[in-house]
Amino acid sequence: MRGFGMHTVNDVGWIEKDRPACGPLDAIIRPTIVAPCSSDTHASHGGSGPKTEMILGHEAVGIVDEVGASVTRFKVGDYVAVPCVTPDWLEPGVQNTTAFTHDVRMFGSFKFLGVKDGTMAEFFHVNQADANLALIPEGVSPEAALMTVDMMSTGFRGAELAEIEAGDTVVVIGIGPVGLMAIAGAALMGAGRIIAVGTRPKAMEIATSYGASEFISYKDGPLLDQVMARTDGKGPHKVIIAGGDGKTLGEAVAMTRPTGIISNINFYDVSDKVEFPMLWWGLGMADKTIRGTFCTGGAERIVRLMDMIKYGRIDPTLMITHKFDGFDQLPEAFDLMDKKSPDLIKPIVYLR
Amino acid sequence: MRGFGMHTVNDVGWIEKDRPACGPLDAIIRPTIVAPCSSDTHASHGGSGPKTEMILGHEAVGIVDEVGASVTRFKVGDYVAVPCVTPDWLEPGVQNTTAFTHDVRMFGSFKFLGVKDGTMAEFFHVNQADANLALIPEGVSPEAALMTVDMMSTGFRGAELAEIEAGDTVVVIGIGPVGLMAIAGAALMGAGRIIAVGTRPKAMEIATSYGASEFISYKDGPLLDQVMARTDGKGPHKVIIAGGDGKTLGEAVAMTRPTGIISNINFYDVSDKVEFPMLWWGLGMADKTIRGTFCTGGAERIVRLMDMIKYGRIDPTLMITHKFDGFDQLPEAFDLMDKKSPDLIKPIVYLR
Amino acid sequence: MRGFGMHTVNDVGWIEKDRPACGPLDAIIRPTIVAPCSSDTHASHGGSGPKTEMILGHEAVGIVDEVGASVTRFKVGDYVAVPCVTPDWLEPGVQNTTAFTHDVRMFGSFKFLGVKDGTMAEFFHVNQADANLALIPEGVSPEAALMTVDMMSTGFRGAELAEIEAGDTVVVIGIGPVGLMAIAGAALMGAGRIIAVGTRPKAMEIATSYGASEFISYKDGPLLDQVMARTDGKGPHKVIIAGGDGKTLGEAVAMTRPTGIISNINFYDVSDKVEFPMLWWGLGMADKTIRGTFCTGGAERIVRLMDMIKYGRIDPTLMITHKFDGFDQLPEAFDLMDKKSPDLIKPIVYLR
Amino acid sequence: MRGFGMHTVNDVGWIEKDRPACGPLDAIIRPTIVAPCSSDTHASHGGSGPKTEMILGHEAVGIVDEVGASVTRFKVGDYVAVPCVTPDWLEPGVQNTTAFTHDVRMFGSFKFLGVKDGTMAEFFHVNQADANLALIPEGVSPEAALMTVDMMSTGFRGAELAEIEAGDTVVVIGIGPVGLMAIAGAALMGAGRIIAVGTRPKAMEIATSYGASEFISYKDGPLLDQVMARTDGKGPHKVIIAGGDGKTLGEAVAMTRPTGIISNINFYDVSDKVEFPMLWWGLGMADKTIRGTFCTGGAERIVRLMDMIKYGRIDPTLMITHKFDGFDQLPEAFDLMDKKSPDLIKPIVYLR
Repeated sequence: MRGFGMHTVNDVGWIEKDRPACGPLDAIIRPTIVAPCSSDTHASHGGSGPKTEMILGHEAVGIVDEVGASVTRFKVGDYVAVPCVTPDWLEPGVQNTTAFTHDVRMFGSFKFLGVKDGTMAEFFHVNQADANLALIPEGVSPEAALMTVDMMSTGFRGAELAEIEAGDTVVVIGIGPVGLMAIAGAALMGAGRIIAVGTRPKAMEIATSYGASEFISYKDGPLLDQVMARTDGKGPHKVIIAGGDGKTLGEAVAMTRPTGIISNINFYDVSDKVEFPMLWWGLGMADKTIRGTFCTGGAERIVRLMDMIKYGRIDPTLMITHKFDGFDQLPEAFDLMDKKSPDLIKPIVYLR
Repeated sequence: MRGFGMHTVNDVGWIEKDRPACGPLDAIIRPTIVAPCSSDTHASHGGSGPKTEMILGHEAVGIVDEVGASVTRFKVGDYVAVPCVTPDWLEPGVQNTTAFTHDVRMFGSFKFLGVKDGTMAEFFHVNQADANLALIPEGVSPEAALMTVDMMSTGFRGAELAEIEAGDTVVVIGIGPVGLMAIAGAALMGAGRIIAVGTRPKAMEIATSYGASEFISYKDGPLLDQVMARTDGKGPHKVIIAGGDGKTLGEAVAMTRPTGIISNINFYDVSDKVEFPMLWWGLGMADKTIRGTFCTGGAERIVRLMDMIKYGRIDPTLMITHKFDGFDQLPEAFDLMDKKSPDLIKPIVYLR
Repeated sequence: MRGFGMHTVNDVGWIEKDRPACGPLDAIIRPTIVAPCSSDTHASHGGSGPKTEMILGHEAVGIVDEVGASVTRFKVGDYVAVPCVTPDWLEPGVQNTTAFTHDVRMFGSFKFLGVKDGTMAEFFHVNQADANLALIPEGVSPEAALMTVDMMSTGFRGAELAEIEAGDTVVVIGIGPVGLMAIAGAALMGAGRIIAVGTRPKAMEIATSYGASEFISYKDGPLLDQVMARTDGKGPHKVIIAGGDGKTLGEAVAMTRPTGIISNINFYDVSDKVEFPMLWWGLGMADKTIRGTFCTGGAERIVRLMDMIKYGRIDPTLMITHKFDGFDQLPEAFDLMDKKSPDLIKPIVYLR
Repeated sequence: MRGFGMHTVNDVGWIEKDRPACGPLDAIIRPTIVAPCSSDTHASHGGSGPKTEMILGHEAVGIVDEVGASVTRFKVGDYVAVPCVTPDWLEPGVQNTTAFTHDVRMFGSFKFLGVKDGTMAEFFHVNQADANLALIPEGVSPEAALMTVDMMSTGFRGAELAEIEAGDTVVVIGIGPVGLMAIAGAALMGAGRIIAVGTRPKAMEIATSYGASEFISYKDGPLLDQVMARTDGKGPHKVIIAGGDGKTLGEAVAMTRPTGIISNINFYDVSDKVEFPMLWWGLGMADKTIRGTFCTGGAERIVRLMDMIKYGRIDPTLMITHKFDGFDQLPEAFDLMDKKSPDLIKPIVYLR
């Protein structure tokens, strides 16, 4: 079968591989729509280590093409959304967390890009299908379902970790797709004022739809100063970080008011550092909680997010700015994501 | 000064009293708009015990008319919203709770109707003004602010106690004003599907605006059966009770799925009983949590709710179905609330 | 192989069966020590329905005798503790709970006594061995490990659901083995004063070792009155129920102070009712939370409890009042548990 | 009256002042025993800014000598413990936190050393006595009560912020008095293994009494390496930091396993920095939560801690290694704390 991936670091292209084998608990999926993500392009540049001949992609919806002998909840032909985080539920590591993201080691539950081929192929493999597949329900389009498997799950997780309370003032740093979903998540979990950090007009327009109250720009001076000026020197109750570097994290800590939470869903570079004055963290005593994570693993999460779409709480397809039709368009879509054109939020590719 | 209240049980009318005295920490408010509530009519029929010559009312916005010598955050002329629950913050009881509702004894923080005269008067008293008054900010109408002091705070508290998680299926029993705000609260805290129980067309219309997905009626058979039928026999994750009696509570417990929460914001009659088969609670082992409370006390809560209005998360004035103009209209507004006409959600009275 | 169980309701005895088959994810255990539990005797009298020819028992430690082809973390000869609750980790139901007790339906994760034969046999079956077995570590005796699989896990869960905070006054109703572990759990999670309800001298002696501060007896009048008298009319912050009936639950609700928690780990009879005056629950508004559950499923829980033993936090073997030596002693041990002699806390049977 | 304090930075001695005035809500206390703390010596060297002629001390028990006209719960002659954090309960800031530590600004609730004279005087002032004083109950010695007002409250807060769960492996860095109380707190909230970092023999002996399982020393190499070696490369579930600098914080983050918590109760120097590789925090995605705070304000906290002493859960007086008799001994006790002799844990001074 054919897939699109990395031959080696900084060298992407078509890869020919055997169709993956299906273990007794597993399923093989024929993807119908995939969405390249910046984690894929990041991996292609070596962000997941020096991988070779690895098919990329971790966001997909598709048709069940084969199920293992022990699978009871799915059958060939089912139309499913596939969470990008698919834990090994038999590892006790999942019993020590509510988010099921680190099964056997840190990031262990994130199998695509890590320990196996991804979703940008004619077929891909899903471990433990009964626990890691979600049927797309009536009332949810495949495109919308596709947005739940990483973007919406990760963005909402950012809002959840921030423990948004009714009327919180929230700063969301970054308005790429994850930041946009963090804005939507914050609004849907009770935020009052949402101050978003970003400048791209298309992203700002969508951010407003999802609940952003106002915008500030890096270009207008230090974020810390701008946020403090707009909040009477008090700072926000919560900050969600969906962009930037270690310096941004420091500013986020500094601006958060005592008893607040800094929630990070940004993936930093391996060369980056956490570095800020202790004074910004109240010399260790300010009751400012700093957290960071990625999206929750397993099917239940996706079922819930699709229910939010089905019952009209959110339309994540507003983020889909570019659509490509056909398997052969994968390289172009990938290239678009890699170059991040100013009007791009999220591209999808129909594989049919 | 003149006020409207109960001479004795089941006998309401005008009451002439001295203007209340202002202690050093306190404030005297001249109400501009008040809203009669079913707790007021309930009290008038003896629900708070055999009170005599007590001015009723606990929902008001108004102008600060006098402040005690130690008050630092408010001055005469400020336009404020007054939380209906005004704790004595010097009682250690507030240090043992996050909701500040039971300062010195059960319900101790609810001073109006309980230990002093209410808000339906030319002037009323607020204890510990610095902690119990909230300035109405620019961008929030006095009418909207008035809806926060009890209805919105109580309804949202119902959603909070239910610990709504992203994608929860929620049943809200009762679509009076508190139930409507519970629906809005559930939707604003992440609910997916919201099944509302109620039949009045006006209330159903508003409930839909606030996020109800569908409706069921008591008239169509036992709630339990109807809810189980609509949820594939699984039941909702959460139930918020804003109406009914002890029998309703039992049905709510029975329908909730294991690990779910039953959150009560309904005020039951003193003669009522909790009574249901143990089997409905999984013989004590179903992980179904049963909770009940009323609204959070203090100014901070109201500040946060007004921020949600200011930043466009909700418009609670949709609930205001009847407006009365002038102090002399108090008896008529009160009578309307007492008789609960079918098209009534919430009446307000401009006192000017 | 031979096992001890129920031929039918109220008729126990030896049962001859085939050794259970081992699926690819599973393990077969040769028990070395088992502990009859009141749930077993309850089941023998029809408490789990009209079961026939079912081997009883759900508490055991033993030697791994066979592992399925896919099992990676255990091998034949390993000495393991077996949690009495062994979820099917591939059911999405476990993804919606932190306690993993209701996988596919209410109580679904409790396989023994429910859907398969129990542990009082020459061999027994454990589903999903990698996730549901725990190696007994150096420094933990098999007898101590045996106490973790249900008694300690359930009793501690009662304390956990009660969300014990530093200095809480806690009432524990019932001082059988689960109540004793609730006392130990409460003391180990920060309780101040612990008032235990029970009268048997042996149990009181052990309860004192585990942290009970004082005792009250049903025989000295209503619990409610006695507890209120001893707590200056304020009531405890938390109540853990490990005995009694629906009436006891009502009293527990009544005595708990506003903002408190009633945590139930008692298994009620199917004919029992929840029934108490609404006034005892503050007419629905007292902020008194009522919860009930059984023990947390999976290996991780047992690993943690064994660590508490290893590092000297608790010695659960104090509860072992009777030891029987040999497979043939199972009927006698079972009979002792069924009749509950006054000096019995927990019997164990060495099967060798 | 006479007090002991700082004339200016690095110049301590006797200070003569007027007895403080008692506001209507306040009380004046005549201390009977005080305990110098490293925060006092830190302040004397400029740690709280360039204060002049300020009486030091914030840990005291004593006799109520005067109460304001509005005080209802205390009277002259009562023997009380005084929490070192005494919030202004009329500031809405306390309504936005469960720990009541930041009333009007960061650290606002910590009045001693900050905005007024401390406790090392013939008399000292307590704001809002009804909410900020705690009667010493029968069964608790004044010396034990004295240990609750800062050391025990802060150390336990460290364990609370770490959200200790049954069987957690916990590392406690630092075994000064706050670290010792963190060890005791962790053990009393369910920890399994407790690895303590420290070398002083006297402190190690007391740490063992409070529950430390084992010790490691800075002198034997990097903490990170030592902890990973002892935990099979997994790291602890939780780390409580009660000593060290910004570098220590980084190591704590690195060693904590994913989903774990780093809880800081160490007061860092104003010149210190948070600085560690992003990789140690899982590039922002490791689910490692970093928190820091100081002790909970108000009377309720102290009442609860004294109850834990009364009911035998802990004896904090083990920490008292040096006793001084008489007001005139204050300079010597202060000097001892300033120099931190190897065998010193906590000195107290009887003022009589």
